Amino acid sequence: MTSIKLAVIPGDGIGQEVVPEALKVLAAATPEGVTFEQTHYEIGAERYLATGEVLTDEVLADIRTKDAILLGAVGGKPGDPNLPPGILERGLLLKLRFELDHYVNLRPSKLFPGAASPLANPGDIDFVVVREGTEGPYTGNGGSIRVGTPQEVATEVSLNTAFGVERVVRDAFARAQKRRKKLTLVHKTNVIVNAGKIWTRLVAEVGAEYPDVTVDYQHVDAMMIHLVANPSQFDVIVTDNLFGDIVTDLAAAVTGGIGLAASGNVNPDRTTPSMFEPVHGSAPDIAGQQIADPTAAIGSVALMLDHLGYPEAAAKIDAAIVKDLENRQGQGPRKTSEVGDAIAALVAG
Amino acid sequence: MTSIKLAVIPGDGIGQEVVPEALKVLAAATPEGVTFEQTHYEIGAERYLATGEVLTDEVLADIRTKDAILLGAVGGKPGDPNLPPGILERGLLLKLRFELDHYVNLRPSKLFPGAASPLANPGDIDFVVVREGTEGPYTGNGGSIRVGTPQEVATEVSLNTAFGVERVVRDAFARAQKRRKKLTLVHKTNVIVNAGKIWTRLVAEVGAEYPDVTVDYQHVDAMMIHLVANPSQFDVIVTDNLFGDIVTDLAAAVTGGIGLAASGNVNPDRTTPSMFEPVHGSAPDIAGQQIADPTAAIGSVALMLDHLGYPEAAAKIDAAIVKDLENRQGQGPRKTSEVGDAIAALVAG
Ligand SMILES: CC(C)[C@H](C(=O)O)[C@@H](O)C(=O)O
Ligand SMILES: CC(C)[C@H](C(=O)O)[C@@H](O)C(=O)O
Repeated sequence: MTSIKLAVIPGDGIGQEVVPEALKVLAAATPEGVTFEQTHYEIGAERYLATGEVLTDEVLADIRTKDAILLGAVGGKPGDPNLPPGILERGLLLKLRFELDHYVNLRPSKLFPGAASPLANPGDIDFVVVREGTEGPYTGNGGSIRVGTPQEVATEVSLNTAFGVERVVRDAFARAQKRRKKLTLVHKTNVIVNAGKIWTRLVAEVGAEYPDVTVDYQHVDAMMIHLVANPSQFDVIVTDNLFGDIVTDLAAAVTGGIGLAASGNVNPDRTTPSMFEPVHGSAPDIAGQQIADPTAAIGSVALMLDHLGYPEAAAKIDAAIVKDLENRQGQGPRKTSEVGDAIAALVAG
Repeated sequence: MTSIKLAVIPGDGIGQEVVPEALKVLAAATPEGVTFEQTHYEIGAERYLATGEVLTDEVLADIRTKDAILLGAVGGKPGDPNLPPGILERGLLLKLRFELDHYVNLRPSKLFPGAASPLANPGDIDFVVVREGTEGPYTGNGGSIRVGTPQEVATEVSLNTAFGVERVVRDAFARAQKRRKKLTLVHKTNVIVNAGKIWTRLVAEVGAEYPDVTVDYQHVDAMMIHLVANPSQFDVIVTDNLFGDIVTDLAAAVTGGIGLAASGNVNPDRTTPSMFEPVHGSAPDIAGQQIADPTAAIGSVALMLDHLGYPEAAAKIDAAIVKDLENRQGQGPRKTSEVGDAIAALVAG
């Protein structure tokens, strides 16, 4: 019997609704001889508003002892006067990504046969974004002076290291090698020059070890056009933390919506638990109504199973998602739990 | 007789092809009693490669004496070993925007009746992005240590001032007031916290003076989804330099392509010449073939005429663009000069 210790963080808003469905499907997909020993952590907006606590050192230490993390979504109502902007994002989600050194933020984009793209001619979309997860403009390095006055100045520093860039670029090349052997670097090297140089250099250097992988480059602004006009040209996209955040939401949109986009915050060195979560946020505007689509959370469970060494269980979930999307056509809207039930049933059998 | 001094900078690549068409249309649209006295500046990649000069203080001083600037596009072949990344962008285009204090980068997005959107259901798109043009991550503030080694660290600093944010926010509110009275701030306040706060504060403060303008907020990543799923919800979008760069390329894509997107780099205080240019770049891959669409450059002339106080001449060009787009339907591809001829003929009436 293999016992896997799973930290479960439903978080805020629709996170609370999609995570139970993801766990339903996990139960159905768990291989013979394996058990998931779950520990649930009720952290997020509610806890913060009640106690002032976001993610304490004790909770973080406990999560660190687990084998993997399943997270729903984090973030309160935008503009809530009791929730300083970023307090949950920086203090919880990004703290986990940074403390657990999730340097590969993995975001596959695939247009499933049954999914409706908003594009008139989406083509065959199947790429994966390897987004850097631990540096760039996300380090919280910055500050403000003369706050609230006409003389206020605020800075934000993007930090980029050869160490941090090289390891994620390496991961991206290894993935490209196993796929269609094409890697696209996305950056803004013509303006963000210093950071651009370190990315360009390391893609060239690591690329020399992968002579059969074709490398190209796109500015992040031009990427907007390519993702809408011809998304099927991409295979593996490697990019920094902020550009990756932006590009993956557009990728999710063109492949049928953010309700389908799964992601993994992966530490390929496996020295810490990796974390799997839908790309979508907590969506307070639709929370509590059982109308959120749990498919992205369920797809994240598939990424988790694959990471944990159960590719067959992962493939079962992916196949069930495809089947469910096909079954959806012509159907009316279903409740969050109905989608979870349907996919779990398909996985079971 | 009113004589207007116009600096013309065709620049690189397709800039050299679209600017002559824009000037053709300008000639056709110029009101009775007005002349445009043109000074052409051959600056850009070619000049740099031949002489090492980008934009000298002398040339800049000369341009400063003009009433307006028409620019094609700037930028060499990506990866050209003789062109350090950003040398032309930072040294020419951004230098002009910064030195001439073009703090309002104005980018209207409209789905013209004859234009083909890549979206299956684009709806009625008609918004304008007011992009900050003189600060944010575009200031070139940053550096690198241990360059080329595994210990390299590169930083990029986003600079945001109350002075700089307030003035562009004010411009955006004034525009919203004259349009559908809706303003959307786009930022990433949950991560880029310091800069986010200054933008949020000033939108709230200036907004208090515009009680009839509805204000909302979108994270830049979520904006990707909205621009693809429901772009018609937007009226005026105000955002920082980098987010504006990204969002306007997506806006151009969903309204029928970057070949149609016009822009103005405006100094509303009119102490310096404002600069008008297509949103597209120099596109070295298609340059010299007379296949680039000059419509964006022509639309930029309309923005220029409007800025210079000739709204009727501007409206004539806009109407001719719409008519030409309608005429295009069913036609095969036309040469760059044929599009210019057609629009000029429509303007001439
Ligand atoms: C919630 C937010 C901090 C987060 C990010 O910016 O990374 C989210 O947008 C994402 O993409 O996972
Ligand atoms: C060429 C480049 C420096 C420029 C920018 O980033 O502003 C361009 O993309 C634009 O949008 O005008």
